[in-house]
Amino acid sequence: MKSKPARLKADAAVICDTEMFAPDLPTLCVGLRDIVYGELHVQGARQDLHSGIYGGAAPNPMMATAEILTALKDREGHIKIPGFYDRVVEPSAKEREAWARLPFDVEEYKEKEVGVRELVGEPEIPLFERMWARPTLEVHGIRGGFIGEGAKTVIPARAVAKVSTRLVADQRPDEALKQIQAAVKAACPKGVTAEFKLIHTAAPSLVNPDNRFIEMSAEAMKQVFGKETVYIRSGGSIPIVGAFDEFLGIPSVMMGFGLPDDNLHAPNEKLHLPNFFRGIEAVARYLELLGA
Amino acid sequence: MKSKPARLKADAAVICDTEMFAPDLPTLCVGLRDIVYGELHVQGARQDLHSGIYGGAAPNPMMATAEILTALKDREGHIKIPGFYDRVVEPSAKEREAWARLPFDVEEYKEKEVGVRELVGEPEIPLFERMWARPTLEVHGIRGGFIGEGAKTVIPARAVAKVSTRLVADQRPDEALKQIQAAVKAACPKGVTAEFKLIHTAAPSLVNPDNRFIEMSAEAMKQVFGKETVYIRSGGSIPIVGAFDEFLGIPSVMMGFGLPDDNLHAPNEKLHLPNFFRGIEAVARYLELLGA
Repeated sequence: MKSKPARLKADAAVICDTEMFAPDLPTLCVGLRDIVYGELHVQGARQDLHSGIYGGAAPNPMMATAEILTALKDREGHIKIPGFYDRVVEPSAKEREAWARLPFDVEEYKEKEVGVRELVGEPEIPLFERMWARPTLEVHGIRGGFIGEGAKTVIPARAVAKVSTRLVADQRPDEALKQIQAAVKAACPKGVTAEFKLIHTAAPSLVNPDNRFIEMSAEAMKQVFGKETVYIRSGGSIPIVGAFDEFLGIPSVMMGFGLPDDNLHAPNEKLHLPNFFRGIEAVARYLELLGA
Repeated sequence: MKSKPARLKADAAVICDTEMFAPDLPTLCVGLRDIVYGELHVQGARQDLHSGIYGGAAPNPMMATAEILTALKDREGHIKIPGFYDRVVEPSAKEREAWARLPFDVEEYKEKEVGVRELVGEPEIPLFERMWARPTLEVHGIRGGFIGEGAKTVIPARAVAKVSTRLVADQRPDEALKQIQAAVKAACPKGVTAEFKLIHTAAPSLVNPDNRFIEMSAEAMKQVFGKETVYIRSGGSIPIVGAFDEFLGIPSVMMGFGLPDDNLHAPNEKLHLPNFFRGIEAVARYLELLGA
């Protein structure tokens, strides 16, 4: 795409990879978070050690990983990486008001969709803004040491944590990566070495809805679903959206037909079949309206 | 042993499961740490979740585990569990002086034996005391989430950390367990549940060296190895020593013939053969001296 902008020239892109905010509620997604995903490698002694003999003298990279992670993000969900929020664009007052009007039952979301007793994240930021317009930092798993049945008293020689941050507009993945790497170095405890190694990055994106492609798409979905189309963002990533914007200079129309309980990228993922058929209809109607 | 003290009656026990402080240096071990080993179970949402969609709202039990662990022990190696040090007996001035006189090259220990650039642990406590006479807390591994090759953006539903503490005299395993469990509850962050489940415990022990069994053993080793016997403790655990003391009321003579570079309970474990033969000789000499 980078080398063939003329050949790939288009007016707009249509992407069907996002969610409807609620069943039967036509929804356009106009913003995506994206990601810096990497591995935090922490090395202690040359080899695994016996915790009786060496405990009190040898560094524990598994514990050091916990120390680094808790230095990167506090208990309230604030990322403590210096400079990390500097480029974050706040949602407009209009967008915030629209989000506040979305049909949403927080208790049902908490209990039925997420299955937790309490939602977390920066307490001073409203829920949709936390998920759609704020960066996050998550640890996905930590490799190393002993995790089998029973007890083994090993001080592991190394630990590797899978760590990612979701970025929002206008954060830059390369800059965010450097900030993470610097923060890991600064937080590294005595006796171990720590390094954040990149696996991949992609840039976040924010689509300006004031263009005829988004407008026609909203109208097409309204006609097919029989309700006013709402505008949301997504906390997930579709890296091609950023690339379309950067290299081709075209807007992406994100007409999505997933549902909140589809268990996206998780066990028992599904697709609601009526949405599949109405989705086809909505995309066809969109092309008709555009061509009219 | 608990139900048959009369049948198991003995004057003393001899245990060959400890180390010589240095090659050719006859060594008696007179104190052992012991252990509370368990699993820290942390539960978040009902199932694994996508970190793009739910990041900023759903709790992360892997991160919560890091938060709990760092609340239990600070970066300098001090255990922050309330009451944990209350029963810890300090070594006598005589014992501390003897430890300070042991032939020991800290640089060689650090680089060759442990293989680290820096030793860690409570900075105000001397090294041998940290390893032999102070409790420790270690995490051995953390199960949960994604640890395979590449990237998966999962917020794990649960994490299980293998955690143990080494106890020293006069800490009591049952009491230490209750303290750990209370500290885990107190440190549990919002949105998750956390529980410390016991796998096993054993009591630490400290042998009074002023009895003829220890004295004869020191003399026998001196005769066989041709050097004055030194008294040390071990940071490891031999649960039967505590049981011999508690149920039979007998001292344990710990004549050990391992060497510091034996890689005890670790990859490439070995036993120095000359120590095997001189060990047999020393135990035989001990029995001769006792019977004389």
